[in-house]
Amino acid sequence: MSNTAAASATLLINCPDRKGLVHIVTQFIYSNGGNVIDLEQHVDREDNRFFMRIEWDLSDFAIPVDALSGAFEKALANPYEMQWQLSFSDRKPRMAVFVSQHEHCLYDMLARYQSGEWDLEIPLIISNHTKMQAAAEAAGIPFYHLPVTKETKADVEAEQKALLQAHDVDFIVLARYMQILSDDFIQQFPNRVINIHHSFLPAFPGAKPYHSAYARGVKIIGATSHYVTAELDAGPIIEQDVAHVRHTDTVDDLVRKGRDVEKVVLSRAIWRHINQKVIAHNNRTVVFD
Amino acid sequence: MSNTAAASATLLINCPDRKGLVHIVTQFIYSNGGNVIDLEQHVDREDNRFFMRIEWDLSDFAIPVDALSGAFEKALANPYEMQWQLSFSDRKPRMAVFVSQHEHCLYDMLARYQSGEWDLEIPLIISNHTKMQAAAEAAGIPFYHLPVTKETKADVEAEQKALLQAHDVDFIVLARYMQILSDDFIQQFPNRVINIHHSFLPAFPGAKPYHSAYARGVKIIGATSHYVTAELDAGPIIEQDVAHVRHTDTVDDLVRKGRDVEKVVLSRAIWRHINQKVIAHNNRTVVFD
Amino acid sequence: MSNTAAASATLLINCPDRKGLVHIVTQFIYSNGGNVIDLEQHVDREDNRFFMRIEWDLSDFAIPVDALSGAFEKALANPYEMQWQLSFSDRKPRMAVFVSQHEHCLYDMLARYQSGEWDLEIPLIISNHTKMQAAAEAAGIPFYHLPVTKETKADVEAEQKALLQAHDVDFIVLARYMQILSDDFIQQFPNRVINIHHSFLPAFPGAKPYHSAYARGVKIIGATSHYVTAELDAGPIIEQDVAHVRHTDTVDDLVRKGRDVEKVVLSRAIWRHINQKVIAHNNRTVVFD
Amino acid sequence: MSNTAAASATLLINCPDRKGLVHIVTQFIYSNGGNVIDLEQHVDREDNRFFMRIEWDLSDFAIPVDALSGAFEKALANPYEMQWQLSFSDRKPRMAVFVSQHEHCLYDMLARYQSGEWDLEIPLIISNHTKMQAAAEAAGIPFYHLPVTKETKADVEAEQKALLQAHDVDFIVLARYMQILSDDFIQQFPNRVINIHHSFLPAFPGAKPYHSAYARGVKIIGATSHYVTAELDAGPIIEQDVAHVRHTDTVDDLVRKGRDVEKVVLSRAIWRHINQKVIAHNNRTVVFD
Repeated sequence: MSNTAAASATLLINCPDRKGLVHIVTQFIYSNGGNVIDLEQHVDREDNRFFMRIEWDLSDFAIPVDALSGAFEKALANPYEMQWQLSFSDRKPRMAVFVSQHEHCLYDMLARYQSGEWDLEIPLIISNHTKMQAAAEAAGIPFYHLPVTKETKADVEAEQKALLQAHDVDFIVLARYMQILSDDFIQQFPNRVINIHHSFLPAFPGAKPYHSAYARGVKIIGATSHYVTAELDAGPIIEQDVAHVRHTDTVDDLVRKGRDVEKVVLSRAIWRHINQKVIAHNNRTVVFD
Repeated sequence: MSNTAAASATLLINCPDRKGLVHIVTQFIYSNGGNVIDLEQHVDREDNRFFMRIEWDLSDFAIPVDALSGAFEKALANPYEMQWQLSFSDRKPRMAVFVSQHEHCLYDMLARYQSGEWDLEIPLIISNHTKMQAAAEAAGIPFYHLPVTKETKADVEAEQKALLQAHDVDFIVLARYMQILSDDFIQQFPNRVINIHHSFLPAFPGAKPYHSAYARGVKIIGATSHYVTAELDAGPIIEQDVAHVRHTDTVDDLVRKGRDVEKVVLSRAIWRHINQKVIAHNNRTVVFD
Repeated sequence: MSNTAAASATLLINCPDRKGLVHIVTQFIYSNGGNVIDLEQHVDREDNRFFMRIEWDLSDFAIPVDALSGAFEKALANPYEMQWQLSFSDRKPRMAVFVSQHEHCLYDMLARYQSGEWDLEIPLIISNHTKMQAAAEAAGIPFYHLPVTKETKADVEAEQKALLQAHDVDFIVLARYMQILSDDFIQQFPNRVINIHHSFLPAFPGAKPYHSAYARGVKIIGATSHYVTAELDAGPIIEQDVAHVRHTDTVDDLVRKGRDVEKVVLSRAIWRHINQKVIAHNNRTVVFD
Repeated sequence: MSNTAAASATLLINCPDRKGLVHIVTQFIYSNGGNVIDLEQHVDREDNRFFMRIEWDLSDFAIPVDALSGAFEKALANPYEMQWQLSFSDRKPRMAVFVSQHEHCLYDMLARYQSGEWDLEIPLIISNHTKMQAAAEAAGIPFYHLPVTKETKADVEAEQKALLQAHDVDFIVLARYMQILSDDFIQQFPNRVINIHHSFLPAFPGAKPYHSAYARGVKIIGATSHYVTAELDAGPIIEQDVAHVRHTDTVDDLVRKGRDVEKVVLSRAIWRHINQKVIAHNNRTVVFD
């Protein structure tokens, strides 16, 4: 049993606040020979809640990788009521992409994937249309065409879940996927489905936000990436950004300018997620970056 | 009768679009000896609506200042169904300020006024509290303390209107005035009451937007300046801007960061208004800048 | 001889200011049966210089397309000393791309090209490396591998110019092309070579701006798109934008965050250029949008 | 000897990185009965340098306030070669302001001071002009008029230093003070003189940056707040921000728009400084916020 495979481990912790938690956690790492590479913590005083991200070098760490979860649970997680997540730097996150017919987000993601910007695997792309099939396959990613109708939705979701399981997927990105997932589906991937919505939520939820923005005469448009929850466009927000617009901008201009915001906001959310920078709690996110 | 008092005139025009309108308007100026200083036009193709701002030098202009409205109406406004507004560079706009207890916007406005940034007059400040009286008077501006209760509201508004008339006020700025004006009041100042709302509308209308923003976990906050209409926080938007926030920001931090956005967004709206840069139409604004 | 092929014409004008220019130009269009679709003008009072962009519908226009240049020159350009540029909406601009080994800008451009965001042709991509050959060819664009050394530079530029001419290229985009073009080359494409520089110029010209930005400890990084002139990184700026950075960002983080700014800033410059929104004069640009 | 006067203490630490530093520092606090309120740390891997900000509640803390420095020095600072700074929440920082004739930054600072936004004292304002005397005195702040000429500079600086000492000043803000301080003066206040420069440094250092920005044709302008060092406009940057500008903006417009950026950027630097959020090292800053 060797630690050599794993360069570093990262723990995300979320628990009731109490005196000395930083000291207690660093003590656990330190006393086992771990060298802390990165440590960030946040206390939400309103909720009396403690959040921590700690990454440490495993090269001299006394606890073997496959015993680490158990050891941590016993020593810290259970006594301090911690919600936690452990990951290792040598295990690439596996991301599935759901897409419909809007191309820009997927093209942007494929470019980042192909140029090595993201340290992840994309084992599959699922779409209810065939429009992006060629682009997916040009990038060497298996593409599954699963059209959805009201009648077939339940069956298609079953098929999707089977595919996700077969490909050992860690999280899902909805890259402008124009279908609403069932509550049941979403509950199987808590804080593991990332959506990009094309407005600065909570303004303009639902369909056609650029048309609504135009009609309201706003001077900014925006995009929001968030974890998907049962309530539409209401999950914990990971990132938002905006672009300024003028009276000269038509709806088409808003759509065009908005695409660039969407791409960047979605890519930042993915970056944060795959680098274990995000803890969602009570419909808010702590983002350590 | 002489034009020498007025350096330049500015016309804001808003009418159904038709072929040759720019040519027709410039012909009117040009043939009367005016030299165009600035010209901006915009056609809203969706509404088939024409908007124009034209400023010209009056030094060689053939039509006397006090005959200009009549001449323009006869030659252009009536035949082309124009809504229009005429102003002269030697007539400073007169701005009334309504304020409650939030100080930052008023302090910021007074600083701009005192340093000469704004070419306007502030003949009076009206407040339902006395908190800002000393600041107003230090700037040499008459301050009227008019407390408002549910019962006295109608009487107080009558008093306010009398004061505004007595001081020959052109437009009103609600610098975080925490009272809702009656529809009747608002209708007497169409597109002449500017409000600053402390959120990026249409998100978080109404009271306590920073608390709502915190609860929703947004990653941006913002402010919106708009003309006041009968529907609360729903009038035509003149300017919006945002600031990025993080999980480390408490509600108090949002309030603090938001104040800086509010001040700047309000001041930009006032700048645009007093420089005749804004045309409101159908709950949207054309902003020529 | 028919105008039916061309939906609209656009004129960019740049000349000494004088009284009545808007009127004179609109008169030319109007009297020949043209319907103005868009008109923007700007007067630089410091330089006493007039700039105009006017687009008009050709469907009822009396002057045939191929006689238009001559007619405009005789009627307006010559008497008023106008520099001008005429384009037609049915003639797609032809853009060549020069690229080295940085992938992100080219990937982004290809995605916009393939999704139809840009109304242009890309007849060829030229590179001193083969890294992007597969991506170019996957998009169906001819790729020319022309390695450059100090010794071969003159010959390679001759070859490049021959290719550009053979492909009837209108303008060139340097999508992170890491070679400096000769003055002679640049002078053959005045205001027709667009570069993206990875800093907010004039800060950090030359090589390795992100390293310099890190060393200087700046809190913002940026990107600049500009027309290339003989002086390195000193040509007229078309667009700039920035991103905020923190002490937690390493040089690699700056590079990563900067890529997103570069892509967007370059794409906005291309959009403006192909939509005839830019007039360069005296090392500054007027951007009508 | 009682701790009751001080609600909390804050330590800023800056030292060579080594294993376990977070653990060691928290151990010191924790073992003495302190409750950590806030903890932030950063490791600069390139410099192998450790930075930390830790704030803890003093109510149950075993070490008396006036023995704390000595205890910390012996236990931690000396063995670990720490540069450090200790402050207490019940001791308001004392800020001197130097100003010349530009009003906007001082007005903005006075408004924040008067409205209680900043938890600090302003014991004096020093100016080489009398323009801002009335505003200073209206805010109840002693104003010293110390005109400077080339000949008197050394004497004036001596007088300034005497005043600063007499008023027990902690740090100095140059609110658009148009005089260059001597190296000797600056060295007496290391990282304790904050300047606001009206450009996005390193672009446009020195005088008249807005004129230079206009001449260069940039599409963004900005402001930079930094600690003053011997080299002009080259000290460690605390905050920067920008505003977008267009070809329609004259130099006067840049100045006007820039003022709003300057005010906000300076105020953020002051906020960070008085809340002990900044550690300067090697001409860069770590900003914990």
